Amino acid sequence: MTRYKITIEYEGTGLHGWQRQDGLPTVQQHLENALLSLCKERVEVFGAGRTDAGVHGLAMAAHMDITKPYDAFEIQEALNYYLKDHRVTILTLEVVADDFHARFMARQRHYRYRILSRRARPTVTRGYVWHVIRPLDVEAMQEAAQVLLGHHDFTSFRSVHCESKSAVKTLDALTVRRADGEILVEASARSFLYNQVRIMTGSLVKVGLGEWNRDDLQRVLDAKDRTQAGVTAPAEGLYFLRVDY
Amino acid sequence: MTRYKITIEYEGTGLHGWQRQDGLPTVQQHLENALLSLCKERVEVFGAGRTDAGVHGLAMAAHMDITKPYDAFEIQEALNYYLKDHRVTILTLEVVADDFHARFMARQRHYRYRILSRRARPTVTRGYVWHVIRPLDVEAMQEAAQVLLGHHDFTSFRSVHCESKSAVKTLDALTVRRADGEILVEASARSFLYNQVRIMTGSLVKVGLGEWNRDDLQRVLDAKDRTQAGVTAPAEGLYFLRVDY
Repeated sequence: MTRYKITIEYEGTGLHGWQRQDGLPTVQQHLENALLSLCKERVEVFGAGRTDAGVHGLAMAAHMDITKPYDAFEIQEALNYYLKDHRVTILTLEVVADDFHARFMARQRHYRYRILSRRARPTVTRGYVWHVIRPLDVEAMQEAAQVLLGHHDFTSFRSVHCESKSAVKTLDALTVRRADGEILVEASARSFLYNQVRIMTGSLVKVGLGEWNRDDLQRVLDAKDRTQAGVTAPAEGLYFLRVDY
Repeated sequence: MTRYKITIEYEGTGLHGWQRQDGLPTVQQHLENALLSLCKERVEVFGAGRTDAGVHGLAMAAHMDITKPYDAFEIQEALNYYLKDHRVTILTLEVVADDFHARFMARQRHYRYRILSRRARPTVTRGYVWHVIRPLDVEAMQEAAQVLLGHHDFTSFRSVHCESKSAVKTLDALTVRRADGEILVEASARSFLYNQVRIMTGSLVKVGLGEWNRDDLQRVLDAKDRTQAGVTAPAEGLYFLRVDY
């Protein structure tokens, strides 16, 4: 048995997220089907995170064990061949130690959220950004984001469906900047709560619209109440960027 | 009568290019249909350039005359409403002088070509890049690109279907650089020959692959023979960026 770490890129639009669900196309399902075709046996894929339906992955990480004595390059080529009809592809594949775990050993996860703030609908980037019609004050968003940095109870910024025992997390980075006509919100942490990046983004957009200021965001954080925060930003603007180990 | 200049963004995948063609979806057709719905009369749209099927537009420019006394903002909003089922949108609309001409008064046109150079297929950017499986030497491409700068007979770099009387053009800028995991080829000139950017890109890729060097590209330019140049890079990687007046 050899353990492999893979990084995966996927287009979230037509997928029901990462996690295997009976009868629905998911990243895990596509990968495990490809592995079944290659290895003629069921191989479970352990992802570093579980992205929602519609969320894109640029370098999601995962691991799996393969008993057949294939060469790493052969495995990657074969899996990508079996994945060719799906918008899921393996970017890298490497042998790792038998005790490597994609989920539990992740030191840092990085996300990006893309916002298109303008009156006209997106065309080229439709399905890849959150379209916000009114102008946003990016400097105010970046300043308010500082409130969320560090070790906090993020109850206000997690989905009511979040199953984590604790809502206390450490947010290591949260930046808001303009790039190529878009506004990017980038977040880094060891781990995130369910929908945390999308709810933080929805809340920062309220700041950008001038409806909230930094103090309001502080009050939302302190409230520990999901109903106090902004909307959950749409899945289609969210990208799982990469994991550090 | 008032003359308006518009800038238009469009997703080229489902379109048969800019120019009106009977029964086919084109940018000009969609714009003129929207104008017919708004003005109840036929209004012709004059574009700054004619992009091919599959080529994307980020800020194509055009002009048109409207006799109805509508307000500029109303026109833009109404046209974008009528365009809502298409991946074509008007970014800006402004009143210009009656003798403004989007095509003839263009001082500089800017194009970008996006290449994804890696083994794994594109997922998120499928339809938006040229996928080149082998690695490219970007520095060699950038160095060789200098050969094409300036005033030349670009016969080798125009489609055999190009109808321009002269193939002599001045290429003002041609750069090759890495950005966000992609390789971008950017070209600026007062005007381009038919397929010029795509054939220049196809030729620069041969340099990037190590099949040609700078001297080979010079020889291709000097040959004034389309069959000497590289392939026409696929339409889906090409973006009409903007026009300067």
